[in-house]
This record gives sequence, structure tokens and C-alpha cells, in this order.
Amino acid sequence: SPSDPEGPSGSQSSHRLLAYSDALISIIATVMILPVAHTPVESYEVLSLQVLLSTKIGVYLMTFLIVSMAWAAHSRLFQVVVRIDDYLALFNLVCMMLITFLPYTFSLMAAFPEHVLGILLFCGCVMVIGLVQTVMVLYAFSRPHLLHPQLQDRPDLSHYQHHILRVILRVPLMCLLASVTAAVCFQLSYVLLAIVIFLPYISAARCGSGAGSWAGGGVPEELLLYSFLPHEPLSKERLEAFSDGVYAIVATLLILDICEDNVPDPSLVSQRFNGSLVLALRSYGPEYLAYFGSFATVGLLWFVHHSLFLHVTKVTRLMGLLNTFSLAFVGGLPLAYQLTHEFPTHSQNELEAIQISCIIIFFAGLFQLCIWVVALHHQQECLLPRVRYGGSEHLLMLAKLSLYPCVALGTFLLTCVLSQFSAPIFHLMELTVPLAFLLLRLLLRLLLALLRLLLLQLPSSEEGSTLLYTAVDS
Amino acid sequence: SPSDPEGPSGSQSSHRLLAYSDALISIIATVMILPVAHTPVESYEVLSLQVLLSTKIGVYLMTFLIVSMAWAAHSRLFQVVVRIDDYLALFNLVCMMLITFLPYTFSLMAAFPEHVLGILLFCGCVMVIGLVQTVMVLYAFSRPHLLHPQLQDRPDLSHYQHHILRVILRVPLMCLLASVTAAVCFQLSYVLLAIVIFLPYISAARCGSGAGSWAGGGVPEELLLYSFLPHEPLSKERLEAFSDGVYAIVATLLILDICEDNVPDPSLVSQRFNGSLVLALRSYGPEYLAYFGSFATVGLLWFVHHSLFLHVTKVTRLMGLLNTFSLAFVGGLPLAYQLTHEFPTHSQNELEAIQISCIIIFFAGLFQLCIWVVALHHQQECLLPRVRYGGSEHLLMLAKLSLYPCVALGTFLLTCVLSQFSAPIFHLMELTVPLAFLLLRLLLRLLLALLRLLLLQLPSSEEGSTLLYTAVDS
Repeated sequence: SPSDPEGPSGSQSSHRLLAYSDALISIIATVMILPVAHTPVESYEVLSLQVLLSTKIGVYLMTFLIVSMAWAAHSRLFQVVVRIDDYLALFNLVCMMLITFLPYTFSLMAAFPEHVLGILLFCGCVMVIGLVQTVMVLYAFSRPHLLHPQLQDRPDLSHYQHHILRVILRVPLMCLLASVTAAVCFQLSYVLLAIVIFLPYISAARCGSGAGSWAGGGVPEELLLYSFLPHEPLSKERLEAFSDGVYAIVATLLILDICEDNVPDPSLVSQRFNGSLVLALRSYGPEYLAYFGSFATVGLLWFVHHSLFLHVTKVTRLMGLLNTFSLAFVGGLPLAYQLTHEFPTHSQNELEAIQISCIIIFFAGLFQLCIWVVALHHQQECLLPRVRYGGSEHLLMLAKLSLYPCVALGTFLLTCVLSQFSAPIFHLMELTVPLAFLLLRLLLRLLLALLRLLLLQLPSSEEGSTLLYTAVDS
Repeated sequence: SPSDPEGPSGSQSSHRLLAYSDALISIIATVMILPVAHTPVESYEVLSLQVLLSTKIGVYLMTFLIVSMAWAAHSRLFQVVVRIDDYLALFNLVCMMLITFLPYTFSLMAAFPEHVLGILLFCGCVMVIGLVQTVMVLYAFSRPHLLHPQLQDRPDLSHYQHHILRVILRVPLMCLLASVTAAVCFQLSYVLLAIVIFLPYISAARCGSGAGSWAGGGVPEELLLYSFLPHEPLSKERLEAFSDGVYAIVATLLILDICEDNVPDPSLVSQRFNGSLVLALRSYGPEYLAYFGSFATVGLLWFVHHSLFLHVTKVTRLMGLLNTFSLAFVGGLPLAYQLTHEFPTHSQNELEAIQISCIIIFFAGLFQLCIWVVALHHQQECLLPRVRYGGSEHLLMLAKLSLYPCVALGTFLLTCVLSQFSAPIFHLMELTVPLAFLLLRLLLRLLLALLRLLLLQLPSSEEGSTLLYTAVDS
């Protein structure tokens, strides 16, 4: 069995290797948010600051997307290779080292779009990753006991190996083409790189429509593992580990800065604050508030994610994609919170920072809700009975998932109307949402009782409302 | 079963909650290395720089120890409470938020040792954590299906609950005492805090000698879970998750800085380097080298850790403590690597930085080796047969674990003798160690063949050497 710690001829369970890889990749996916965070607000004109910030945010989002793609490819590979040995573990470390270098090469590309060097470095990294993965596939297929049990006894194993190698190698080949083209016309090489990054989605659409592209016939069920079909299952365990890593690093982003920057210099305290540490720390007050606010929000979004995936039995690629989008928004949250306190009160900037925070929370929550909606479309395979339509926790799950989008939208609209009270409204929201989560079952029951009272006026719907009422009664 | 995703009355598997907590705590344990890393070398005199650095390193090490203690307490609690529900998950998030704030309060204490505020903040945090944990224990014991299956049917459940509450509550009580004392005599309150932090070890020794402190009789086997005995098992899964988090964040520390600082400004490149990006990046060369060197070292130390714990079946508290020491040294590694390139070549500083790197690698590896040695002392319970004395992979494991300490010691001694070649020797070491790990089986076989040749001269030891030879032959 794949979870057995010791197997034949020194093969090992891959569990911990994958957990470590997930931790590394999730840190790297969020790393480009740091240059956004540490952009000095004062030293730029308003317009150039906005250009700079939007460039950096663009780099962050693209990096997140690229690294998530690399993670998905890694995840797919280790759904086929389910056991490892020392050599695979060491090759995987080489792979990780190169993946962690990708964000830097990409940010070079973004800062110097007309220099060939950035493109060459990026393509070089991707090509070497592709080659290392090719070596890993060849190695694993030469030792079939490392492969997924369903594959080990297949007669067309070499056919399958060629399929996987074709999928893996087309990325470095496109990059080779892009780096050759870069010398002639760098615009064209960007087009090629864009194709590389979105290739999985293009081929998903092609496979989805063609369906018979696999050797002229239908795709066998077990080959779904490496087929790029939209309903292809992802490893739920790895998706959770990757998400946990992102939520953890994002939740601690602000405290990392606070620990580094907000311990005042003893000589400064004795000179400027007459030795009163309390006065010295009071100036940092808003930063502590930003930290606790962002930690609570990220923590509660993690809680919603956790509650949802507890009831998910199968993760499709579309759900994985929506999860990536949600995580990308979560990554921007601490900075938005930080910005809310950096500007003078009642200024236009403060209002904008608060509204941006609301928009980010809204989308992070909305994409989580979308994951559930997609899962409900295939609820027989994707969800446990409890949260399906009519399940005992269906409404509770809906309440959990829609709490943040609703509150964020409400706060946004309120700050539009009552713009001079935007800061108090936002702080009130920060305080009430954790309480709302604690009392969610109670609130839901109250809401349903209220609904029932209203619906009882219409005698025909009585049965439906009883169903609603008993649904949260368990 | 505890791994069942859905249990009775909305209880859930705690697996993912613990993984997320481990990720958060491991990031926070290493966070105080950042102020050390970002201390500007140029702007201080040599002596004050050394004082500043050693203070910051002291703060880092103490923070690591304190956060590790908090992690151990958290781990111990969730060995008793094996299933969770929504309320426990939310309470746990509150706990995590306070734990992530501990390093900051501690660094305030270190920067202003004579101010009461630092002590009060630290004690306040610890007291609130203790109270939240008390609430969690009371809640979990009022719903026995959340507890460890061995406990659920025990008649003396309330006795056990009181034991756990006593253990948990003495920490906040000591902190209360310390914060009251701080107003009178702050030195005394430091003594009290030191007792709090090292209390688990003191009571371990007391329990170990007394042995009968548990309700006047011997400690039942299943109650080892919360006994503070030195042989009390730790959760292996959580120790691995915590270690993975530390290795992952440490491996990426340098690339975080590189991504943020080492993308040159386009205007600077066109002015100073005539638009040549290659020339501009060449000045960062040493930093890339430091990154790859530290990533490879941390990655390979992770690999050794992974190989060892693959064969460990039970983790005792002593092994956990040695693991913490090893991780604390690993945390300093990237900085040591970075320092090796910050000073002019052939300077005394460069030599010292290289030697410090060797010392750190040596201790990080040595403590890993110690974990194995301790496990070998109880090899029947703690290790799989393969790596016990005479097992088929005993020698291979010894080689893996002793490679880094030996190489680091060798490099250190070489740089003492050939101090003008210290940098080339160090770079050669960085290059050869990954190769040595790849070829470890081969190298070991060669070494043993050599040994056999030598030993064959002495006819009496032939049998022993054959045993040695066949040991790595599988």
C-alpha cells in the first residue's frame, strides 16, 4: 500500500516529500507580495506610485499563477509515481530549488521586458525543471513498484510513459523555442511563454471537446490521472497542504514585519519619549490592529476552506483553479489591511484602502463559494451526503461560505454611502465576523425561524419550511 | 476512528487543523532570525555590531525555544483531544494568533529588560493562551467522543481532566505571579519566567525519579500521553510537520530577500551599467551562490531527517528536544552562508563567517545523529528493524547521518590550516556534498571493500567484515 513506510527494495512512502514540497511551493507562490508590501509610499509621486504598485501586483498575480501551474504539474507527476526512493527524493530537491528560483527570473522579466536575459533565465529554469522531471519519470518507470498500483500491471505501460513524457517535455520544448525566438523578436517569445503557461487549460478544452484524442478511442478511467481532462481528479490531500501553506505564510506576513521593524531603539525611546515605552509603542498601534485584523480574516477564511474540504470527496481541476484564484486574493489581504492604517483618517486614500480590502475579501470568499457550487454540480462524486442538496449541513455550509462575501459586500456599500465613517464601519466588521462564526448555528436557526414565521402566512410552503428548520436541527 | 473525516454529531478529523497549526508555529519559531539577517553590517563599529548581533542571536535562540515549548504543549493537548468540531477549530485559531504574537513580546522584553511593559505583555499573552486552552480542555471533556479512544471509557476521566488542567494552568499562574512580581522586582520575575519555560523539563526529571507521583501508584501505560515522563511519546506526524515547516521556511529565507532586493532599478541599469543587465546582475552573483548553497544544505539536512524518521516508530521527548536543537541551528544556516560572501576575500571576517557556517552545519548534523543514537538505545520500540544494530540499512543510515558532521568538521579544520584558501575549500564542500549523497551507497560499498581488504590481514575478524559487506548489499 502507498502509505506503508517501508516497501520493497528501499522504496518509501512519498507522503512527507510531498508535504515538504507543498510547503516550499506555497511560500514561493506568495513571495512576490513582499516587494508590493515594502514599496515606500512617501517617496513617489501619486501617479508613479500607482504605476509601480500595479506593476508589482501584476508580477505577484502572474507569479502566483505560474508557481501554481508548476505545483499542479508536480502534483500530477506524483499521482502517477506514488512511492519514492532516495534518488527520487534528491532529484525532487533539485526540482524544488529551481522552482523557488522561478519568481525571481519572472520579476526580472517584468522589470526588463526588452532584455533577452530575463527570458533566457526563465526559460532556462523551466527547461532544466522539465529535464529533471523527465529523468524522474524514466527512473520511476524503470522501477514499476514505485508507480500507482493501477498502472503496475498494465501491458501498455511504455505507451503510458510516452504519453506522460510528451506532456512533460512540450513545456521545455516551447521554452527552448521561446528562448531562440527571443534573440530575433522578444514579443513573439512572450506569446510563446503565454501559450506555455496556459497550455494545460487549452489542452483541457481540446481534450474535453475531442474526448477521443486518446489513441483514437475513449479515455480509460484510470488514465484520467494524466489526461488533462477538466474532470480529472486532483490529489485532495496535496491541495489542502498547498492551501494550508499559503494561508499560514499569508497569516504571518504582517507579524514578520512587526517583529523586524517595530521594536523601538532604546536610545530613541529615552530621547523622544522620556523613556516611556508605552508612548513609543502607541505609535505602532495601527500596525498591531492591522496584524490582528488580517490574521483573523485569513484564519477564518482558512476555517471556511477547512470546513468545505472536510466534505469534499473528489477535487476536479476546475475546483483546483477556483481555489488558486481564491488563494491569490488571500495573498493580497494583509497588505490591504496594512494600507487601511497608513493614511490619515478621513482621507480619500484611507477610504480607498478600506474599499480595496473589502473587494479582496469579497473575491477570496466568492471563489470559495464557487468551489462549492461547482462541487454541487457533481455532488454524487464530489461531496459527502451531509452537504449535498437537502443534506443535514447543506444550509450551514452555505451560511459559512456566504458570510464573508456578504459582509464584505455590505461593508463596501456602507462605506460608499457613509464615507466619513468608513474606518469605524470596517473595524466593527473585523470585530463582528469572528463572533458571527462562533454563533453561526444559532444565527442560522434564528434566521430560519424568522423565515418560517414569514412563510407560515403562505400555507402551501409549510412543508418546505419544516424541511429547512429540521435541516439545521441536528 | 480518528482519521474518519465525518464522525458523530459534527466532529471532524483534527489532521488538517494540526497541519495548519504546525505550519504557523514553524514560521513563527524562525521569525526572529530576520532581524539578525537584516542587521546592516556597515553602519556599526565592530564591537557594537558584535554586541548587537549576539543579542539578536540570543533572542532568536530563546524565541525558538519558547515557541517550540508552546508547540510541544499544543501537540500534547491534541494527543488527548483527537477529534475536533467547529468551536475547537475557532478556539485554536485564537490560540495561534496569540502564539504568533509571542516572539514580538519577547523581543520587546530583550530590548527593554528593565521596562515592566515587556514582561506584562509576554505574561499577558501566555495567560490568555492558558485560559483558551483551559476552555478547550473543558469543552472537549464535556464531549468525550472528541477524546482519545483509550480515554473515552475510563472511569477516572474527571481525575484525568484535573491532571491536565493542573499541568496547563500552572503556566498562566506562574506568569500571573511573575507579572505581579515585576512591579516590585523585575529580576525576580525573570527567574519565575525562566522556571515557566523550563518547567516541563524540571517536572520531567521529578516524575522520572519519583515515578509514583501519579495518584500514588505506577503510571498506567496509556496515561503516558500527558505524564511529562522522559519516555512519553510525541506525535511523530506532528514532529515531522513542524520540522518540514522549519526546513521549508529556512530554505527559502534567502530567496525571499533576493526576490525583494535584487531586481535592479531599470534607470540605474541604464545609467551605471550602460543598459547591460548582465553586468548589473553580476554584482549579485555571490548572493545567488549563497542562496543555492544554503538551499542545498538545508534541503540535504531535510533529506537526512526524512530518511531517519522514515525508520522511527516512536518519538520520545528527548528525541523531540534534540530535534528542536538541530532545527535551531538549521535556522541560522542561511545567514551564515550569506555572511560568507559579504566580506572581502581573504579577510579575517570571511574566514570567520566560513568557520561559523561549518560550526552551524556540524551541530545541526550532530544533533540529528544524536536523535538516532538515542533511538538506538530503545531500538525495540523506537526503530524499524532495518536500521537497528545489524539491520540491513544500519550502516547506510550511519553514513547518511554522519556525512554532514564529518564534512563540516573536516572543512573547519582545513580552513584553520589553509586559511588563505578558505573560500575555495568551502565552495568545493558545497559542490561535493550533494554528489556524495547521490553516490552514498556506492561510496559506502567502496569504503567497506577497502576495510575488508585491510581487515582480511587479520584472519579472526573475517566473519565480522563479511557481515559488514552483506549489510549494504541488499
